[in-house]
Amino acid sequence: MQFSELRIDPIVGRQVFIAEDRAGRPNDFLKLEQSERAAVDAVAVVGCPFCAGHEKQTPETSYAVHDARGDWQVRVVPNKFPAVTSHGEKVVPTGLPFKVQPAIGAQEVIIESPRHISDIIDLSLEEFTTVLLVFRDRLRHWADDRVTRHALIFKNVGYAAGASLEHAHSQVLALPFVPRTLGEELQGARRFYADHQRCVYCQLLQEEIRQGLRVVAEEGPFVALCAYAARQPYETWILPTQHAAHYGQLSEVHAPSLAKLLQQLLFRLHALLPRLSYNLVLHTAPFEQNGDSAPNGDAVEPYYHWHWELIPRTTKLAGLEWGTGMHVNPMAPERAAAGLRGVRCEG
Amino acid sequence: MQFSELRIDPIVGRQVFIAEDRAGRPNDFLKLEQSERAAVDAVAVVGCPFCAGHEKQTPETSYAVHDARGDWQVRVVPNKFPAVTSHGEKVVPTGLPFKVQPAIGAQEVIIESPRHISDIIDLSLEEFTTVLLVFRDRLRHWADDRVTRHALIFKNVGYAAGASLEHAHSQVLALPFVPRTLGEELQGARRFYADHQRCVYCQLLQEEIRQGLRVVAEEGPFVALCAYAARQPYETWILPTQHAAHYGQLSEVHAPSLAKLLQQLLFRLHALLPRLSYNLVLHTAPFEQNGDSAPNGDAVEPYYHWHWELIPRTTKLAGLEWGTGMHVNPMAPERAAAGLRGVRCEG
Repeated sequence: MQFSELRIDPIVGRQVFIAEDRAGRPNDFLKLEQSERAAVDAVAVVGCPFCAGHEKQTPETSYAVHDARGDWQVRVVPNKFPAVTSHGEKVVPTGLPFKVQPAIGAQEVIIESPRHISDIIDLSLEEFTTVLLVFRDRLRHWADDRVTRHALIFKNVGYAAGASLEHAHSQVLALPFVPRTLGEELQGARRFYADHQRCVYCQLLQEEIRQGLRVVAEEGPFVALCAYAARQPYETWILPTQHAAHYGQLSEVHAPSLAKLLQQLLFRLHALLPRLSYNLVLHTAPFEQNGDSAPNGDAVEPYYHWHWELIPRTTKLAGLEWGTGMHVNPMAPERAAAGLRGVRCEG
Repeated sequence: MQFSELRIDPIVGRQVFIAEDRAGRPNDFLKLEQSERAAVDAVAVVGCPFCAGHEKQTPETSYAVHDARGDWQVRVVPNKFPAVTSHGEKVVPTGLPFKVQPAIGAQEVIIESPRHISDIIDLSLEEFTTVLLVFRDRLRHWADDRVTRHALIFKNVGYAAGASLEHAHSQVLALPFVPRTLGEELQGARRFYADHQRCVYCQLLQEEIRQGLRVVAEEGPFVALCAYAARQPYETWILPTQHAAHYGQLSEVHAPSLAKLLQQLLFRLHALLPRLSYNLVLHTAPFEQNGDSAPNGDAVEPYYHWHWELIPRTTKLAGLEWGTGMHVNPMAPERAAAGLRGVRCEG
C-alpha cells in the first residue's frame, strides 16, 4: 500500500513529498535498507527489468521509438513507485500551522537502450540523439496535458547521485505547478530582462565566450561551460547559443550536435573522475498554455533560456550547506574548465 | 596559497563560496582525493590534532573551558582552512552578469573533548552541558563583533554528513549577513506573526504536543519532534517550549535538560540507524544590535524561535531534488517518531 502527500513546511513553505511504501512499510530504516538490498539482489536473480526481453517486469509502455527491424530502441514506462499520482490522494488538514496537498502529477522512466549499459557514453551518437529527441517528445506530450504546468527531465547516474538501477535511464516528473528551483530562475531572469532588456543567459553566453575562462567545449549551436558560481567541482551547464526558452523547440537538425557535446563532456568527466556519479537536469520553461507561466503571468519566451545542468557528485553537503542554504566549492570553475579542456577526446 | 571569494549565481542570486586550496591546488580532483586521503593517513601517523597533547597541531586557542585540575575540557580554535577571512580578499568584477564579493567572516572549530571520542553521546551529561554552554558563549562573543550579523553553529558526524575528522567537534561560521536559510525562516515567521499575532513555532509546538504524533520526547522545557515536512527520514527538531529567539539566552539552569534530550535523541537514532551520519544545525536569530535583523528592519524577538535541526543522512539527494528544490522523503514523520519513541533509553 502506498501513502503519498505533498507537505508544506509551516515556516518557509518548502514542499516535501512524503512518499511511503516502496518497501511495504518496514518498521525501521534498517529494514528499509535491507529490502532495498533485497530488490538489488532480485535484479541479480531475475535479471534487469530494463533489458530487452524483460518488458513484463515494468508497467505498460507509454511511448517508444523502434529501429528499422521493429525492435524498441528507447522505451518510456510509468514509474512503478511514483511519489505523485494523476488523481492524488485525499489529504486531511491537520490544524494550524500545518498544510498539505494531494501529491498530483506523473512520473515516467525513459529506458535509453535495450542493452544493459550504465551510461550514455556507451550509446552510439545516433542512439543518444534519439534519446535527446525522446526527451523533447515527452515534453511535447506533457505540454498537451491540461493539468501539467511543468515537466522535469533528469538523470541519476551512480550510487552517490541517488541511482538505484544501473541500466541507463532518465526520469520525467510532470507537475501541476512550477517547482521552486525553476520559479527562482524565472524570477531572476525576468528581473534581469526588466533591467537590461535582454535574456540573462544570452548575456552570460556572450561574456563567457568572450572571456573563454570557463568554456569547456562548443559544438554546433551549443556550448558547455563550468558555471560561474558552481556549487560543486565540475558543475557544468550546456546551453544553446541561440535564444530558446523551451527544450521542446529542439530540432532534428541540431540534436546530433547536442548529443556529441554531452557525450564528449561525459567522456572528459569520466577521464578526470574515476567512479563518476552525477545528476543531469534539464531546465526548461513551463508550459505557457497551461496557465500563467511566470509568477506575474507574462510570457517567459523572451527572457528564459533552456539548458542542461550537470552536477558531478564529488563533495558532500554538510552542516554548513544545510544550515545556510549556501555552498562551498573547493575548486574554482576556471580550474575545472581547464582540466576538462585538457582531456583528449576522440573524433 | 589560498583563494576564496563569494560568488553570486547570475540568475537566482545563490551564494557560493569558492574556496580553493586546502590541498595545495592539485591539478585535478583525483589528486585532490589523494591528498585528502594523505591528510587522513597523516592523522594516523602523527595522531589526531584535536586530542589532548597535540595542541600545537591546531591554531592558537581562542577560548577554552577548563576542569577543576586546570586541564582544558572544551577548546575553541580558528579553522585552519577557512572559506572566509576577517579581511576578505580583493575581488575583481568580471563583467555583466557576474557578481562577486569578498568572502568575509570567521570560522572556528569547537573541540568538544580532550579525549578521542567520535560523538556527543560519549560525553557525560555534565561534559555535554558544558559544550552546549560554550556554543552559547561563542554566540555571545560574536554578537559583540560589530561586523558579524549572524553566527551559525553546526556539526557534521560521519562520512555521509561531510565530516573529515572523527574526533567530536562542532563549527562556528560567523558572517556579516543573514544567510539564505535563516532569511527564509525569518520571512515566513514574520508573515505568520502578521497574520496570527503569534510566533509560528509556538503555534507549532502547541499543535504538536496536542496531537502527539510526531513528538519523540520532552525533557524539562524542551521538546524533540520529527518535523512535519521532514526532508529526510528521522529529521528532528529540538525546541524550547517557552518562546525565545536567541540561543544566547540559554541559562545554566536549563542547559542540562537540553543536553539530556539531545543525548537521548542520539541514543535512539544510533539504535535504529547503524553507522549513523548526521548534521546538527542551530537555528538562532541574527544579532539585532549589528544592523537590521529582519529584512524589513523590525525586531525579530517576538516572532522567531531558536531550535536545533538534526538531519540523519539516510537518503541521497538526486536529480529530482537538485532540479526542483523539493525533497522526497520515503518515511512519514509520524512513523519515524513512533520508531524513535519505541527505543528504550536508560535513565
